[in-house]
Amino acid sequence: MIRVLIYNEFYHERANEKVKGVYPKGIHGAIADFLATDDIEVKCTTLENDECNITKEMLDQTDVLIWWGHLKHNLVSDEVTALVRDAVLSGMGVIFLHSAHHSKPMKALLGTSTNLCWRESDDSEILWVVEPSHPITRGIDRCFKLEAEETYGEPFVIPTPDKLLLLANFSGGEVFRAGCLFERGNGKIFYFQPGHETYPTYYDKNVQTVIKNAVRYLAPTYREFIPGTHVRKLTDDGPYVI
Amino acid sequence: MIRVLIYNEFYHERANEKVKGVYPKGIHGAIADFLATDDIEVKCTTLENDECNITKEMLDQTDVLIWWGHLKHNLVSDEVTALVRDAVLSGMGVIFLHSAHHSKPMKALLGTSTNLCWRESDDSEILWVVEPSHPITRGIDRCFKLEAEETYGEPFVIPTPDKLLLLANFSGGEVFRAGCLFERGNGKIFYFQPGHETYPTYYDKNVQTVIKNAVRYLAPTYREFIPGTHVRKLTDDGPYVI
Amino acid sequence: MIRVLIYNEFYHERANEKVKGVYPKGIHGAIADFLATDDIEVKCTTLENDECNITKEMLDQTDVLIWWGHLKHNLVSDEVTALVRDAVLSGMGVIFLHSAHHSKPMKALLGTSTNLCWRESDDSEILWVVEPSHPITRGIDRCFKLEAEETYGEPFVIPTPDKLLLLANFSGGEVFRAGCLFERGNGKIFYFQPGHETYPTYYDKNVQTVIKNAVRYLAPTYREFIPGTHVRKLTDDGPYVI
Amino acid sequence: MIRVLIYNEFYHERANEKVKGVYPKGIHGAIADFLATDDIEVKCTTLENDECNITKEMLDQTDVLIWWGHLKHNLVSDEVTALVRDAVLSGMGVIFLHSAHHSKPMKALLGTSTNLCWRESDDSEILWVVEPSHPITRGIDRCFKLEAEETYGEPFVIPTPDKLLLLANFSGGEVFRAGCLFERGNGKIFYFQPGHETYPTYYDKNVQTVIKNAVRYLAPTYREFIPGTHVRKLTDDGPYVI
Repeated sequence: MIRVLIYNEFYHERANEKVKGVYPKGIHGAIADFLATDDIEVKCTTLENDECNITKEMLDQTDVLIWWGHLKHNLVSDEVTALVRDAVLSGMGVIFLHSAHHSKPMKALLGTSTNLCWRESDDSEILWVVEPSHPITRGIDRCFKLEAEETYGEPFVIPTPDKLLLLANFSGGEVFRAGCLFERGNGKIFYFQPGHETYPTYYDKNVQTVIKNAVRYLAPTYREFIPGTHVRKLTDDGPYVI
Repeated sequence: MIRVLIYNEFYHERANEKVKGVYPKGIHGAIADFLATDDIEVKCTTLENDECNITKEMLDQTDVLIWWGHLKHNLVSDEVTALVRDAVLSGMGVIFLHSAHHSKPMKALLGTSTNLCWRESDDSEILWVVEPSHPITRGIDRCFKLEAEETYGEPFVIPTPDKLLLLANFSGGEVFRAGCLFERGNGKIFYFQPGHETYPTYYDKNVQTVIKNAVRYLAPTYREFIPGTHVRKLTDDGPYVI
Repeated sequence: MIRVLIYNEFYHERANEKVKGVYPKGIHGAIADFLATDDIEVKCTTLENDECNITKEMLDQTDVLIWWGHLKHNLVSDEVTALVRDAVLSGMGVIFLHSAHHSKPMKALLGTSTNLCWRESDDSEILWVVEPSHPITRGIDRCFKLEAEETYGEPFVIPTPDKLLLLANFSGGEVFRAGCLFERGNGKIFYFQPGHETYPTYYDKNVQTVIKNAVRYLAPTYREFIPGTHVRKLTDDGPYVI
Repeated sequence: MIRVLIYNEFYHERANEKVKGVYPKGIHGAIADFLATDDIEVKCTTLENDECNITKEMLDQTDVLIWWGHLKHNLVSDEVTALVRDAVLSGMGVIFLHSAHHSKPMKALLGTSTNLCWRESDDSEILWVVEPSHPITRGIDRCFKLEAEETYGEPFVIPTPDKLLLLANFSGGEVFRAGCLFERGNGKIFYFQPGHETYPTYYDKNVQTVIKNAVRYLAPTYREFIPGTHVRKLTDDGPYVI
């Protein structure tokens, strides 16, 4: 059983009628609906009273964390940010969706500004598979199209991904590294660009396939539950006596 | 003084009136014209009587080799291929242009099929800078446009580049890793996608800037002239006695 | 069922009494003995009459190829080399052991000289785990020791590995990147340094664990059986009509 | 002129007679002494009254920052940490020495725990060149030896370096990735392991050569002085109108 925890700031869906119309159960609800299956168990958590209530206990029970945030990144405390970073370094997987590129945990884990260029103009987007044999792109044809998405453009200020899986073409002319895999400590990080709150992106079958594949790929096979793994004093006599 | 050698198979420009019209001096001639300056010396070599006459002596006198080929890859012998590979491993830089992705030296150096998808349909292409601080993209704005180019599409079967510098958006909807840097042995390899023979790509100021920057960046600062560098028997007593 | 094919040039074990004493069934026999289990099926092939008889049909039926060679690399034909390279690019896994760093398939897949430094002086070797959460190092403590091995030293002329898993310390003072993972096309390549023919390395439990782990990790989950995968002409109307 | 700023917490050299004996002018003083030349200008800053006084103005005037710290990492404020990270992302180079692997700026830039194993037992260390053609290893033979250093061991919890330049062998049997290059945003980061405060490491000619080479290699050729570079709203009409 893979245990997924979805964090969604759940702001737009409550504050904006249009977004509420697209995601009546919240973005987290839409993701939970397609993700829950026989061997994937899903829990959700959202901002309540402007507070992110993620605890170490919750993360200890999580194999893969999915994160959606946009306007309320700053309401996630430094403490929660550190908990998420430490959980990933200990082995938990994490998927950052769309505007979560600017979330505090993603910035803390990658160390860069994660800045990018953007435009809201109903461009269509075609996502192309760069690595057709990777488990995360399994079941995806060589490309798929979203009729409308927010445009994201390069330069995307991230470390060189350990593996670039998907590239996006926007009808306005931009390109973007839309599916990026990073390995940090014992954990894996997947950034997946589609998912602006005003579009029905998370109902798209291909988007769902990528997220489902990513959950299975990121689920840890090894995990250490001591944050700050691997601090060890060597024996005084060298490794010969271990 | 940086010594550049341009290899061009020089077939289309002799066999096809349209291409001859675009590149009356050959693609090599067009590149040589914009490249030669006070501190860059350019020589050219082409297929003569279906033979590629590159020798070890020529490569020993070359800092950066530029390669354009398309239909006549097979006329480059295995011996010349090995000479080029060994020169790069010893420190020579090499720039593979456009359809040279399928040249024997590029395949020998990267080890993959270097296959890709393509279409000839006069699509326009926009090239985006992924790494604005890299010496090869210096002087390029965040993107530049070519009114018509051959479309190249992913998957491009290459090892993950050591650095991805440019991404292309084609008006038909494709994307492509258009500027890729690889480091192999003591040498550097730059693959740059634009340059189909029927378009005036090599007269474009931005394309010229990228190639000029690449020549300066790839010029070796260190070179060993023994092909098969670094085969060394260690002393019998370990490194303490070196 | 994972189908493994072991290639061993099987020269030292026939020509040298000391080696025959260590590996009476050949190195391939020793590896086959610990590898064959309920879900791993092992076949072996060796040089017969100075010929390597690997065929496309054999590789089509192989999930992971294991390669040991030393003095007889040149007896592997260019045709077999190309078959192995194409099989890996299509998805087959390959493990190169010890002196197979200079085998023709490894050089063809990596594109470099794969040169290194070496010494035969019965140094002991300690192998350290760099990535403790990787499936290939599972079950290995933070290091393990081999009482005697051939010393290999840097510089090891390879592309930067996609993942560095193990580092070796030799008692004479050298270091070496002893466990290196590369991804090429649809396939994975693992280079593992221990295994000189005069030492009982392949009877070591930790060495066996690494090789068993690697077989499971490299087994393809996706494979295309057309050598030169992914050459595709795009439609004339762009991806919208796919 | 390359402008170097050396930060040293300058604690051991004031608190410990033995260390004071080795570095009477402080570690920063020893580094400044060998670094200052015709085209390198050096300034130093240390903890004063338990405060790190680095300002944005100082970093704006710095091409390469060198950082040495050990027991007083926590006295560097989050504000200074963010200033250093932003300066690197904008283009400034930074060299982290020895125990600075646990400094707040290095952790903020790499995103991992940067944990490692260690032992203080006067082991000797041999540093091996992995990339002999890299500008940072220029002038270094294939290895060099330090008669005594603190032992650092793997696993070193860092992202896979963009380039691994040096590997260390310790006489007690450990190995360590001793020279690691990372690229983040517009800036470059070099981690160099030798330099425990009780040993005269920074008087060693080879150590000095590596640091001098690194200063020249990391000096920015491109810099943007807006922290959080590259946040840009695209035009509403796509890139065609730029």
